[in-house]
Amino acid sequence: MKLLDIFGALKKDMDYIERQLYRSIDGDDELLSETSLHLLKAGGKRLRPIFVLLGGKFGNYDLQKLQYIAVPLELIHSASLVHDDVIDDADTRRGKATVKSKWDNRIAMYTGDYIYAKALMQVSELGNPYIHRILAKAMVQMSIGEMEQIRDFFNTEQSVRNYLLRIRRKTALLIAISCQLGAMAADAPDKVNALLYRYGYNVGMAFQIRDDLLDLFGTEKSIGKPPGSDMRQGNITLPVLFALQEPGLREPLLREIRGIQAGDGSGEVSRAIEMIRTSPGIGKAEELADRFIAKALEALQQLPVSAARSHLEDIAEFVNKRSY
Amino acid sequence: MKLLDIFGALKKDMDYIERQLYRSIDGDDELLSETSLHLLKAGGKRLRPIFVLLGGKFGNYDLQKLQYIAVPLELIHSASLVHDDVIDDADTRRGKATVKSKWDNRIAMYTGDYIYAKALMQVSELGNPYIHRILAKAMVQMSIGEMEQIRDFFNTEQSVRNYLLRIRRKTALLIAISCQLGAMAADAPDKVNALLYRYGYNVGMAFQIRDDLLDLFGTEKSIGKPPGSDMRQGNITLPVLFALQEPGLREPLLREIRGIQAGDGSGEVSRAIEMIRTSPGIGKAEELADRFIAKALEALQQLPVSAARSHLEDIAEFVNKRSY
Repeated sequence: MKLLDIFGALKKDMDYIERQLYRSIDGDDELLSETSLHLLKAGGKRLRPIFVLLGGKFGNYDLQKLQYIAVPLELIHSASLVHDDVIDDADTRRGKATVKSKWDNRIAMYTGDYIYAKALMQVSELGNPYIHRILAKAMVQMSIGEMEQIRDFFNTEQSVRNYLLRIRRKTALLIAISCQLGAMAADAPDKVNALLYRYGYNVGMAFQIRDDLLDLFGTEKSIGKPPGSDMRQGNITLPVLFALQEPGLREPLLREIRGIQAGDGSGEVSRAIEMIRTSPGIGKAEELADRFIAKALEALQQLPVSAARSHLEDIAEFVNKRSY
Repeated sequence: MKLLDIFGALKKDMDYIERQLYRSIDGDDELLSETSLHLLKAGGKRLRPIFVLLGGKFGNYDLQKLQYIAVPLELIHSASLVHDDVIDDADTRRGKATVKSKWDNRIAMYTGDYIYAKALMQVSELGNPYIHRILAKAMVQMSIGEMEQIRDFFNTEQSVRNYLLRIRRKTALLIAISCQLGAMAADAPDKVNALLYRYGYNVGMAFQIRDDLLDLFGTEKSIGKPPGSDMRQGNITLPVLFALQEPGLREPLLREIRGIQAGDGSGEVSRAIEMIRTSPGIGKAEELADRFIAKALEALQQLPVSAARSHLEDIAEFVNKRSY
């Protein structure tokens, strides 16, 4: 199911953004255009461009301007994914072969660098230093989040707060600024920009928690990559942390995780996942996701009633209802 | 020998830039600060910041402004090096362990991403969209150059023109805009900015040709990395291309390179290097470097006589006289 199916109102504009996205990476170098296009065509929900356009509806909506936010934000997201795949040693993403598996790690790394640079070129078209600064700061935070994720692999002693800080950097900030910058580029009032930022931040947090849950419950078909990837690479997510708080479960789960880390056959991803799936950790994680969504809706309520506002409500509900 | 030894006039300002460089990557995340600092402290000639400051001397020199060009340009250069080291599988650079060998490839990749993002944050302080745009375009070109280098590994059929285009993207453009943006940030006249760009471009081309020659003639001690790295990884440089144009040498050298590529012991890096060293390819490459330096000096001659102009002349001579 694609987010776009929720509403047709943005269809024409999103088609335009899609074309501009492809155009943005076309024509420099055959191999780079090919790898970049492969990455972009592998799909994705285009959540960030949608947020940019909806943010723009709270001011003087101008697609010609908004494209220079929407396209770079999707490019930055895609570049971070292609670098992620190098790290995660992932062979599929969104059901398609990753750049690193179809080509190689080196090519994936430079494809990411190229797409980042293209994103900066796009955003420089706007000539707005505030937007540039907000974007640069978010990119710094994203790279910190990525590094924290590596550092925290197999760290079963990390706190829930640590997890939340990491997904804030890794995921929520970019979604927050998608909403905010869309409104800013449309000259919406500061108050509105700030509320949209708050909405996006909270939706982004819920989104990542749901994504981490999906990795435990999804099938290769439903999530486009092998389930259990997080556990396999040692990415300790919220439901795992909550499961580890259960007195009866803690020791056997820890043993399993240590075994997976040791790679000596003494731990099984499927067994660890089964323990977490049937633990109260799932319900607790869902509850926290619900709380973030409630906060997102609360921020929306302070914005004027409009079609865009109700679309944002729909997206918040959608994010929180990803089925497994 | 350090470039700074050529002149003491910039010493105080360069010390300031050096401190700002360290500050720019400090404090976000322990590991990232550590890897970034390791990378920056490993040294380097700080050629790009020097060019920025000297460019600034052709307008209203203001170190407080120029730092936001000088620091990001050195950061971008450093980020490209750390990503290079992942690709090249290099264990040492400038005589020190690389980030990828001291930590690992994943950490090196995110260190690069982090430093790129930090560079953008720095440059956003200036709030000058023209500068932002020029920088973004140069970064796109750099990543294309990097990708071309991978694509052209062991491609002995490539033309000299192909090599020149590649080093233009990979090296010369960033040096060209270092000179240009320094002057631009100091509100120098457009004519001056353009001449400094031309100077930097030509010096950058000569610099890369000399660097490629050094890889054939240097010792581990003099160049801070094992010599012959280019040949080992299949990077076909200008002296190699010229050597391949020699009728008597072409076939044996090709056999050697094919053998190195095959990795079956039928080719020896040291033998290939010896063939090139004693070939007319060296003289031809030096001649081309001389021609770029002559063009650089020609551009300078059209600028007003000043201490900065004579420093730039000194640097051009220095670049072209790197001993081996």
